[in-house]
Amino acid sequence: MNELADAQVTVVGLGLMGGSLAGALRGQCRAVVGVARRAATVEAALADGLVDWATSDLAEGVREADVVVLATPVRIIIQQLGEIGPLVPQGCLVMDLGSTKARIVAEMARLPEHVQPLGAHPMCGKEISGLEAADPSLYRDRTFILTPLPRTSEAALALGRALAEAVGAHVLLLEPERQDFIVATVSHLPYLLACALVATADATTSADPAAWEVFAGGFRDTSRVAGSDVAMMMDILLTNRDEVLKALGTYQAKLGDLTRLVASGDEEEMRAALSAVRDERMRMFP
Amino acid sequence: MNELADAQVTVVGLGLMGGSLAGALRGQCRAVVGVARRAATVEAALADGLVDWATSDLAEGVREADVVVLATPVRIIIQQLGEIGPLVPQGCLVMDLGSTKARIVAEMARLPEHVQPLGAHPMCGKEISGLEAADPSLYRDRTFILTPLPRTSEAALALGRALAEAVGAHVLLLEPERQDFIVATVSHLPYLLACALVATADATTSADPAAWEVFAGGFRDTSRVAGSDVAMMMDILLTNRDEVLKALGTYQAKLGDLTRLVASGDEEEMRAALSAVRDERMRMFP
Repeated sequence: MNELADAQVTVVGLGLMGGSLAGALRGQCRAVVGVARRAATVEAALADGLVDWATSDLAEGVREADVVVLATPVRIIIQQLGEIGPLVPQGCLVMDLGSTKARIVAEMARLPEHVQPLGAHPMCGKEISGLEAADPSLYRDRTFILTPLPRTSEAALALGRALAEAVGAHVLLLEPERQDFIVATVSHLPYLLACALVATADATTSADPAAWEVFAGGFRDTSRVAGSDVAMMMDILLTNRDEVLKALGTYQAKLGDLTRLVASGDEEEMRAALSAVRDERMRMFP
Repeated sequence: MNELADAQVTVVGLGLMGGSLAGALRGQCRAVVGVARRAATVEAALADGLVDWATSDLAEGVREADVVVLATPVRIIIQQLGEIGPLVPQGCLVMDLGSTKARIVAEMARLPEHVQPLGAHPMCGKEISGLEAADPSLYRDRTFILTPLPRTSEAALALGRALAEAVGAHVLLLEPERQDFIVATVSHLPYLLACALVATADATTSADPAAWEVFAGGFRDTSRVAGSDVAMMMDILLTNRDEVLKALGTYQAKLGDLTRLVASGDEEEMRAALSAVRDERMRMFP
């Protein structure tokens, strides 16, 4: 296993996440190679200086890779994991950046023995997708979850860790199921809440032209992630469905409690409940 | 009715909203006077240069006011409207900054005839409350809703409009009930959703230390307003309860629709629903 500085890193999928990772790694590795389906994306990544070279041909892009990072939507990652084994050299580290890990890691377990698999999920993003939104500082100071498999070697894990740290992130090791449970609540649930909020305004106030002048900062922030890339979010929801549905169930119960409190007008209980929430939010983001 | 430049403006309540308004108005009026319950707040507002002078005595503060702006929580505003009539001079404009308007404007209708009442609700705020968070740029480029009463004179409305524009806001005239309907969805509902999200994490993932390292940007934004001042939000929810409960009902139905879609795994319908939401969010915040 090579050191990161000696490695060719091939990033497959040059959207927001992949393009940002490539740009952040460039100059810290022997070569950063991009693979994108569309020729226009290949050209844009080169023009933007995010990669040393790029191609639309997956086999060509990964042939001499020391590290391959799959930065496509989750179900494309799963499909690519089924194809990539025979294409990569002996000892190649194959990582991904997908938001859900149990299904991906199960697929990684089926990779041929000459491949070193490592699941990964960096906790960053923007509601704008695509290479145009790529930003090499995207990963800085963010948590980069790694979910090694039993078969992942110490050296492969160390190389994955070095990659995460090279882009400015800090590593958190988690079991795949535990990561899926956590992100269902802290990431996938907020997306659905934001979508339901936008749908509510659409069904009620949006008919009033005045409403368009009074969108408050609260609405803007609470609804922000409803602008996320739909293909990416569909794959996430469909590959973490059980955990997302459990989180939705708890959420609906909590919202029901708050609704009953508002309806009751019981000031003492309202104050206690809202104060506890405020204190908890302060602990989360001091 | 005086021009704003000739007016003494007395701001009652020197928290985030009142302190910011005072600071933004200072130098644009004959005098900006602050009224705060606590002596420490009076001193801090003077020390921060937000007011020309300040007092803990409501009667003293408003005695020579051309404009009084009540910047306290909604139910305190309602109480102060019951006291302030005999304390202010002939022709005084009495405004407020409360988030709900129907109840306040009903109370304003009972003010003595020598007073000019004008409901107001500037669409700005922060999740941090108190004078320490005051910022004279808070109102800049924000919508400043005005809800005049049938008895409000043209001159009084013009003075209220001049005040809003002096702090950099743009005015939107609305009937009180229409404003309460709109803000229930675009402002009060997001608060409750954010609270339920924090309560959900508290009940599930917060027990796992790893969860505290992976709060994503989505969670941070979606939960931000859960940190709002509890006393302020209680008064808002209790004085706009019917509209808030209606908005909650629509929201729960929309979230139920999304939950059923996720559970069904029907990709075509999911894609259509999530794409429609994303398009609508883009229209809301281009």
